[in-house]
Amino acid sequence: MKPVTLQEIKKAQSVLEKILPVTPLIRNDWLSRRYECDVFLKLETAQPVGSFKIRGASYKISQLTAEEKAKGVISASAGNHAQGVAWGAREYGTSALIVMPETASIMKIHNTQLLGAEVHLEGENYDECFKAAQRITKETGRTYVHAFHDPMVIAGQGIIGLEILSQLPEVDFVVGSIGGGGLMAGMGTALKALKPSVKLIACQAQNAPSMVKSLQAHHVVTADFKGTFADGIAVKNANPEMYEILNPLIDLSFESDEDEIAMNVLRFMERAKLVVEGSAAIILGALERYKTEIKGKKVVLVVCGGNIDVNLISRIIERGLTRLGRRIHVKVQISDRPGSLSKLTALIGSLKANILQAMHDRNDTKIKLDETEVELLLETRGKEHSEEVIKALEGYCIRVQNLND
Amino acid sequence: MKPVTLQEIKKAQSVLEKILPVTPLIRNDWLSRRYECDVFLKLETAQPVGSFKIRGASYKISQLTAEEKAKGVISASAGNHAQGVAWGAREYGTSALIVMPETASIMKIHNTQLLGAEVHLEGENYDECFKAAQRITKETGRTYVHAFHDPMVIAGQGIIGLEILSQLPEVDFVVGSIGGGGLMAGMGTALKALKPSVKLIACQAQNAPSMVKSLQAHHVVTADFKGTFADGIAVKNANPEMYEILNPLIDLSFESDEDEIAMNVLRFMERAKLVVEGSAAIILGALERYKTEIKGKKVVLVVCGGNIDVNLISRIIERGLTRLGRRIHVKVQISDRPGSLSKLTALIGSLKANILQAMHDRNDTKIKLDETEVELLLETRGKEHSEEVIKALEGYCIRVQNLND
Repeated sequence: MKPVTLQEIKKAQSVLEKILPVTPLIRNDWLSRRYECDVFLKLETAQPVGSFKIRGASYKISQLTAEEKAKGVISASAGNHAQGVAWGAREYGTSALIVMPETASIMKIHNTQLLGAEVHLEGENYDECFKAAQRITKETGRTYVHAFHDPMVIAGQGIIGLEILSQLPEVDFVVGSIGGGGLMAGMGTALKALKPSVKLIACQAQNAPSMVKSLQAHHVVTADFKGTFADGIAVKNANPEMYEILNPLIDLSFESDEDEIAMNVLRFMERAKLVVEGSAAIILGALERYKTEIKGKKVVLVVCGGNIDVNLISRIIERGLTRLGRRIHVKVQISDRPGSLSKLTALIGSLKANILQAMHDRNDTKIKLDETEVELLLETRGKEHSEEVIKALEGYCIRVQNLND
Repeated sequence: MKPVTLQEIKKAQSVLEKILPVTPLIRNDWLSRRYECDVFLKLETAQPVGSFKIRGASYKISQLTAEEKAKGVISASAGNHAQGVAWGAREYGTSALIVMPETASIMKIHNTQLLGAEVHLEGENYDECFKAAQRITKETGRTYVHAFHDPMVIAGQGIIGLEILSQLPEVDFVVGSIGGGGLMAGMGTALKALKPSVKLIACQAQNAPSMVKSLQAHHVVTADFKGTFADGIAVKNANPEMYEILNPLIDLSFESDEDEIAMNVLRFMERAKLVVEGSAAIILGALERYKTEIKGKKVVLVVCGGNIDVNLISRIIERGLTRLGRRIHVKVQISDRPGSLSKLTALIGSLKANILQAMHDRNDTKIKLDETEVELLLETRGKEHSEEVIKALEGYCIRVQNLND
């Protein structure tokens, strides 16, 4: 792969500025106060397809010859890259064929088709799907648009670095996530070329940590891939050429587990009013981990995408609230006497917890005859409040089983 | 009440630009293509407390005398205004006392306290709470900061109009929602003074429509107040003085029902990656209603706030998906023979619908002995797809009961 240069990134910017917006960089008051620094969010969610992937894919397509455009483009992806390719192909008047695994979700197929691409379903998983796409590439003569392993795709993502420097020249830290590494490779190249003092922080899911583990080991390592709901960064193996680009650029790196990512999806919703996907939410973990380093500094979080299934959001809200200690799910046994249930609810009310759900089953044959059981879903202000409520429940009830654990 | 002038709005801008951001105005590609016009979103959700209310409250507080600041401010509110007053008071070094109804949610109380305000709970509903606040105002000598009925508060909200004109001088339409009317009064005054050709579109919840009904009747009328989940615009009666300001400013107005508002909360999440409250989501209804008028035009939607309880979001996702025809909830009876359940799921799979939940109960005594019952929650691409799936289910099952209705 050819190296990526600042010149190529500047060229990409001059090409794409005709069709894509400069995304907003907004200061977040809440996070800034909490971490005693200036936190800015770079909203790639404001791109036409809701993710930065549109930049690299569009630039790649813009540089095709007339002959290549006549044959069209192809890519294997069920995610943001698919939509980026579809959008770019439509914009530059070529046809796009997207190969997705047979398990791809309805909405991902539908949204890609809405952008004018043809969708071909093949393969049980991404690897099989990628193989199918390579076969079809040979059969059709279409140009394959890789999601990251391509200097022009990387140059397209690099524009984000140029935009950040012109929007906030005083920037000290930039935080971004790594899947294949295209975002950090392009953005890092631009940032370090123009302002070497900027520190880059990279993160990956603990369940798909190959690149971060490689960066920390200073050579490419294989890591256990368990899969993550942050599907935008669910990449199995670190690509050695991408590692070579990233290694000199990244200053700090960390991993985040599934619970933390879910909690941060929720924090983005509540504290920034943004719908972000797991691969974007994960960056918030940097603020807590590096709070000493960033104090008093200007920190940019690159919010790389917002494509998250709404069916998933409900489940993430549950998981996030539980992790934040703002939701208690308990099963309690109380004596089966008149008034005991109303005493229980009065107790909860006096502690200023909200009852979201209460399931009361008197007919469960496993319960003693003189006892009754209630399953409660409660909303609290946070961990301390939850502990206070559980302590009070333990004082009143015969048994309290915490179903959060 | 003194009239609101362009001069006062400009003064408010010069005061607040030191402490509050110019909020982003971003073009939404998806909505623009769908309605063949240029749709821009004015992101008041990017304000420190997630809503435009911070502008009016902060400006009001900024103009208090040293003596007034020494006594502090007070307001009755459980919503965005409460947080705006708390934030403004902290910024200008005065104390805020917020009176909320006893039923106010934990998070609203908590978030207001986090901003440094004292919260006093009194009254069963807003009216009682407002009365309590008036009593305490007299007792304490604090300055009452009204949520809309105050020329300085209106002037603060008016800054949004100035920002829109400088960000998009070619603007043709501006859409905003009305609760008390402060936003539209301030913004409309600025817009019409500087560019009289701009058309203003206002909306209210069908369940709280007093001002829109008054604007349409050309005099103040009382309307049936049923309450709305869009709590930011749940105002019972149109204030006559606000009506006098709004009447010459508003060109078009409409009402939106609870289902449509919920659907539009969901569309904001999916198509703009934004968490918006009901009072902001409601504005999206303008695009469908006025699609002829706006074709080829530049339309600004003022996304007034993003303070929505995450516990509510899950429920809204359900309601919105159902309304959009993307979720089917049915109970079906099939013959109780080996393989009949697997045939049912294979049928659903062949139609490319996702099974989100399947509840199968063989022990329900109300079911015939040779039948079995399955309750299904399915995800589809949309209305047409849902109809296709239901037709196929009706062909296979003994009975199909649509639980969506």
